[in-house]
Amino acid sequence: MYPNSLQQLIESFKYLPGVGEKTAERFAFAIMDMDDEQVEFFSSCLSNIKNKIHKCPICNGITDLDVCHICNDKSRGDDTLCVVEDPKSVFLFEKLGLYKGKYHVLKGLISPLDGINPEDIELEKLIDRVKNESFKEIILAFKPSIEGETTSLYIKRILGDMNISITKIASGIPIGAVMEYIDAMTLERALVDRKNVE
Amino acid sequence: MYPNSLQQLIESFKYLPGVGEKTAERFAFAIMDMDDEQVEFFSSCLSNIKNKIHKCPICNGITDLDVCHICNDKSRGDDTLCVVEDPKSVFLFEKLGLYKGKYHVLKGLISPLDGINPEDIELEKLIDRVKNESFKEIILAFKPSIEGETTSLYIKRILGDMNISITKIASGIPIGAVMEYIDAMTLERALVDRKNVE
Repeated sequence: MYPNSLQQLIESFKYLPGVGEKTAERFAFAIMDMDDEQVEFFSSCLSNIKNKIHKCPICNGITDLDVCHICNDKSRGDDTLCVVEDPKSVFLFEKLGLYKGKYHVLKGLISPLDGINPEDIELEKLIDRVKNESFKEIILAFKPSIEGETTSLYIKRILGDMNISITKIASGIPIGAVMEYIDAMTLERALVDRKNVE
Repeated sequence: MYPNSLQQLIESFKYLPGVGEKTAERFAFAIMDMDDEQVEFFSSCLSNIKNKIHKCPICNGITDLDVCHICNDKSRGDDTLCVVEDPKSVFLFEKLGLYKGKYHVLKGLISPLDGINPEDIELEKLIDRVKNESFKEIILAFKPSIEGETTSLYIKRILGDMNISITKIASGIPIGAVMEYIDAMTLERALVDRKNVE
């Protein structure tokens, strides 16, 4: 019913997460109201992104440099390695600005139910890196979930005898949460992982 | 902090209506997870849209044909002309599938407060069309608002002495609405425009 090129643009928008028919239509009509140059710039951004962005050969994070600016940053500590499940997590931690060590990005988490095994998430690259560098602590920063837990245990089993401290980020009740809306698993975890008041 | 080309893509997404920083980031990362061909297709859709889509010279609606398929459709009645405020409204009515007459698309609505005067919304094209064709009824289908009302009154004043019936779509309480959430203006309109029960 829409002109063909408009319909195709709407379909393209629908591939974005959380975008249904109505939102895609709204986006497409907004595009038609934009300046030609702005739309052309948008189009070229999309067209460039796949060429310019690639994986950092050291940490697997995304970058447009040969080696990412974090791996390249000599001022950052190389005692600790923060292992994350996707490239986006690196930026989340960097926005926080608290962590000053290095990162390593896995290709997701182990999930036997979905047929995702250790070899599918490029774990060997992490293991090689840990063996060749001299980290004192490995921080596992996965989302609290069966998959996160499975991946943590697997890494612990493989690297456990290397005299490196292997830690994981704390899981529990988020700051500011209303207690009655906390799910049972989170509450259980918070209870089990309770700490001395100091 | 993000690689430059990624940051530019995020900025582009932020020009879409209702898209803030977080959603733009989510969209950009989703793009990086897509196949190369899919992203290339998206990019070309954007790049094409401004070249392929243009205004129908008769009704001002958008089309990729010389004259839009509605103006071209000889089976549609040419007794009634539905006047709308933007190209999207045409598709809303067409989805409904009830209206079988012709359309005319204005460039927005008169809004003296925003400095939008009759000459800014291409009203003369509508007036010329009405004078040259032989419509029996003009249906004004604007959103119920000061601007919609102003535009309706202006059109009525100009075309009122042409022996054409000028109507506007009904405004009132939407079907299924909870009465207590209806705003005062809508309720007032619904009361004033009450109809005999038949």
